[in-house]
Amino acid sequence: MNERSVAEALQEAVQERDWAQFHTPANLAKSVVIEAAELLECFQWDESADRGRVAEELADVLTYCHLLAARLGLDPDQIVLDKLDVTRKKYPVDQARGRSTKYDQLSD
Amino acid sequence: MNERSVAEALQEAVQERDWAQFHTPANLAKSVVIEAAELLECFQWDESADRGRVAEELADVLTYCHLLAARLGLDPDQIVLDKLDVTRKKYPVDQARGRSTKYDQLSD
Amino acid sequence: MNERSVAEALQEAVQERDWAQFHTPANLAKSVVIEAAELLECFQWDESADRGRVAEELADVLTYCHLLAARLGLDPDQIVLDKLDVTRKKYPVDQARGRSTKYDQLSD
Amino acid sequence: MNERSVAEALQEAVQERDWAQFHTPANLAKSVVIEAAELLECFQWDESADRGRVAEELADVLTYCHLLAARLGLDPDQIVLDKLDVTRKKYPVDQARGRSTKYDQLSD
Repeated sequence: MNERSVAEALQEAVQERDWAQFHTPANLAKSVVIEAAELLECFQWDESADRGRVAEELADVLTYCHLLAARLGLDPDQIVLDKLDVTRKKYPVDQARGRSTKYDQLSD
Repeated sequence: MNERSVAEALQEAVQERDWAQFHTPANLAKSVVIEAAELLECFQWDESADRGRVAEELADVLTYCHLLAARLGLDPDQIVLDKLDVTRKKYPVDQARGRSTKYDQLSD
Repeated sequence: MNERSVAEALQEAVQERDWAQFHTPANLAKSVVIEAAELLECFQWDESADRGRVAEELADVLTYCHLLAARLGLDPDQIVLDKLDVTRKKYPVDQARGRSTKYDQLSD
Repeated sequence: MNERSVAEALQEAVQERDWAQFHTPANLAKSVVIEAAELLECFQWDESADRGRVAEELADVLTYCHLLAARLGLDPDQIVLDKLDVTRKKYPVDQARGRSTKYDQLSD
């Protein structure tokens, strides 16, 4: 199943329900964070979590990410790869290896 | 660019930096919500936002979603489609059309 | 320093800067979650965090909570105490003791 | 009702239920953002929201903020006032008046 099909399946479900009117970029951004917090709730008191429940909550986050990308004409895979290029430069392997330090403190 | 390539590119960057040790499911879930809030920050005081900045923040959310999916052996596209099936049933077209009502209040 | 003084100090700073125009309830709710995620960022990769940094981020969350409460004419202390009454009933001591279980699963 | 009483009422309820064991600073920070997102959910598709529902969700955010402050020996009112001093300096009235611009772009 490729990106085009997922985006198409989502758009079809949205159109059938006439939901595009609610999907302003700002509302979709709110929805992404609301669902992300439900994902985090799986881990609220515990490091371990039920995989099936995590899958469902992660799917909700991804769904709103796809809808926001579509709304702005962005390709979800492409923006991830573009950002990865930026990250690779900000975190050179020799400085970042095995450290969770933020890039602006890497040379400390 | 298909899902396999994005996942592979991300894994390669993580392995080069030996970052997998930080990427527990719980830490990745925290990271998803942290980045989701930075995405929302683009719309904090204003409905409109700079498309390039949104693209970067959305990419960060998606990146951690991909890493969490990979960590748990989940296919990001498949879980979105699975969840869409659930949503289609919870929100029948004839009841949900043109309404942002939550499914448990749809019959009101 | 009591609640009245905190609320008054915040209102004064907002009025001097003519910021009330940005402080719709929806924008303040967004701001609460944005700051809450910055608080979480102190613990992104690690259970321990710098106390001074946590204090600053927690202060930002509380600040927007106070502004939202003021905007809606709510007393921050009173709503916490009111909600505590609800929680006490939903989580009876004999059932909830030593368990992080959610109330709707307490009798399981 | 003053700060001491709110903090005391919360501590009493937590002790009765033996919940302090779950209330690590990291777990409380997660809880703050989870509740903050539920607060935002009141405004997910709409600028207006039910005041009573907002009061309940805001109370949940404040509750975890109080618990985190108590856990770290911080005075909630004091840290808000301390941060307000910082904000007053970062956003001088003559530069910040009527603008939602972030402090690092104020002189633009």
